[in-house]
Amino acid sequence: MVEKYYKSRIYKLKKELENKNSSSSNLIILKDENIFYLTGFYAKDSESLLLLIDNDLYLLVNFIYLEQAKKTVRLNDLKVIQYNKNKYKKLAEILIDYNEKTIGVDGQNINHEDFKKLAKYLSNQNKKLISVIDTVENLRVVKDDIELYKIEKACSIVDKVFNYIINFKSSVLNDFTEIELANEIKSKMISFDAEGSSFDPVVANNEYSSLPHYLPSRKKIGNGIILLDFGARFDNYCSDMTRTIINGEYKNYSRFKKIYDIVLEAQNISLDNCREGITCADLDSKARNFIKSKGYGRNFGHGLGHGVGIEVHEKPRIGVSEKTILKENMVITIEPGIYIENFGGVRIEDLVIVKKNSIKNLYKSSKILIELE
Amino acid sequence: MVEKYYKSRIYKLKKELENKNSSSSNLIILKDENIFYLTGFYAKDSESLLLLIDNDLYLLVNFIYLEQAKKTVRLNDLKVIQYNKNKYKKLAEILIDYNEKTIGVDGQNINHEDFKKLAKYLSNQNKKLISVIDTVENLRVVKDDIELYKIEKACSIVDKVFNYIINFKSSVLNDFTEIELANEIKSKMISFDAEGSSFDPVVANNEYSSLPHYLPSRKKIGNGIILLDFGARFDNYCSDMTRTIINGEYKNYSRFKKIYDIVLEAQNISLDNCREGITCADLDSKARNFIKSKGYGRNFGHGLGHGVGIEVHEKPRIGVSEKTILKENMVITIEPGIYIENFGGVRIEDLVIVKKNSIKNLYKSSKILIELE
Repeated sequence: MVEKYYKSRIYKLKKELENKNSSSSNLIILKDENIFYLTGFYAKDSESLLLLIDNDLYLLVNFIYLEQAKKTVRLNDLKVIQYNKNKYKKLAEILIDYNEKTIGVDGQNINHEDFKKLAKYLSNQNKKLISVIDTVENLRVVKDDIELYKIEKACSIVDKVFNYIINFKSSVLNDFTEIELANEIKSKMISFDAEGSSFDPVVANNEYSSLPHYLPSRKKIGNGIILLDFGARFDNYCSDMTRTIINGEYKNYSRFKKIYDIVLEAQNISLDNCREGITCADLDSKARNFIKSKGYGRNFGHGLGHGVGIEVHEKPRIGVSEKTILKENMVITIEPGIYIENFGGVRIEDLVIVKKNSIKNLYKSSKILIELE
Repeated sequence: MVEKYYKSRIYKLKKELENKNSSSSNLIILKDENIFYLTGFYAKDSESLLLLIDNDLYLLVNFIYLEQAKKTVRLNDLKVIQYNKNKYKKLAEILIDYNEKTIGVDGQNINHEDFKKLAKYLSNQNKKLISVIDTVENLRVVKDDIELYKIEKACSIVDKVFNYIINFKSSVLNDFTEIELANEIKSKMISFDAEGSSFDPVVANNEYSSLPHYLPSRKKIGNGIILLDFGARFDNYCSDMTRTIINGEYKNYSRFKKIYDIVLEAQNISLDNCREGITCADLDSKARNFIKSKGYGRNFGHGLGHGVGIEVHEKPRIGVSEKTILKENMVITIEPGIYIENFGGVRIEDLVIVKKNSIKNLYKSSKILIELE
């Protein structure tokens, strides 16, 4: 990806910092995904640190990531600096040459102990450390064209894998354990060019489908409900999809189908109402009120959706009392569900790009109830 | 796993808290792996919270994890409580019934903003929030028999996959890109009964092998160095292994072989010296001094190793100036390396159990230089 994308992100971040805090427009960034977004260098749990100050940019990495950082950063003016063990000490050495009296740090992504340690280093320079939150995260909510391209690729992989799974015969599925089917999904995503899963797939059979983030077990898949929730990573961008299907003859079919139809209608109502300008809370209430009106309000205990991008869960949250207003080119899931303890659950989840007057749904996978024979 | 393991862990934690801080022996725990270690409930990024206070235990989870938590906690006395959106508010409601004036929180695993928020809730009850660090992490360093069993299983999967890879012909490997080979490794681990990878495999060809945590690319694997660093997860426990091999005819063979032999000897020296009673710094220096004596001191920029367990990187660190003394049944990697920019690198990594007078190496994979034909 070319430098101009990163330059534009840095520029926007500076503008946002100036708006937030007129006394200083510097920032220390610690979250790997935020560093990736701003520089092109990505290493999970790398303990790296990015400093924006005046017109300077410093990326502090340890020995392990030094060469990778030098090779992958996309900003010519950025200085890659190696630290040994203590990145905050190295940071303090750099800051000594700057006159700013207030230094901002992303307070949601620094642990309390580290905040104390860094504040102490800075107080020796008569500088004050302050917590500044949600700056990069707020930039990341609206995706640019390259990001949308990568997310769409990640979604197309998921479509292919779902299509592969629903072509199994029921008798074949009965030979899989939940974990084995989850692994089959992971392997297939990889064979369709994903770097990996965006999260551990949920494969939940019958009563276990009432656990929204269930971990697959080593028991064989029986006839009945199969809830599949999985996503791929492509070029460090994520997808996320859920479908609930029926495997073979199912004794509780009619009770299940009633719930399925309610969830599907709730999802369709949400998709129809999703566009630039609506608040997250309003969108959430479209699905929630419908499910409530059918008597299942207390069985839909999670939010309607969430943003997806470099992380599989990022801003915005689509939930009760979330005031964020949707904007064009936000990418969000829409995933109502109904969960009945000791019976099972239904969730149907799409990933969509918010448009001016509608959405672009990134999946082609059918939501008509699929029954494997 | 039976309740007694978890009860014993809780008991030890209480003892440690009493030793640390005579005024209070309560603790708020936020890290998923620590909650798993103490309760049996594991959900990555679940935003759960465990409270130990007096003789009571509370696990706060949101709707998504409620049923899963109830089904997987292994402590009969633990109360699973649902919170809506704000776990700290729910926590404050619980704490109001307790007289303790000082409440401890794991300060390395709460972000600074959340610490401030929680401290404010508690100050309304005239309670003071203090940061308490490394308590559960310190318990986790010495593994019990069930943990050792799971780690050994995770290691045996890695051995099988490595054996599978080194049976490829060089001409077959040349057909893979680095990412495709990484994916093959992931799929194979799964087919050998892993739940997944303990981290994204490193597959680094030639000059890219000088980047210790390189991410595989979409370029075809050429003749020469292949550095493979990967690990499996089995029942939520990790393994981690590195081997460096040669693919086909390699023009820089003799320069490479010289480095390989130095790294291998450095590793053997470390393995020979590893036992209960040695400090991490001393063990590190065994490899480091040898590599220095051969003139490659500045090409070995990372620590000699790290602990492995529920996390692939956990305590202890084996590095310069790390004063921890090794104890029986710690599980650590020993992984010296030499990295030469624009040429390539060698790393050889085993996972071992520290014993009274020696180690148990958990891998059978050969370290004699493998050259694929």
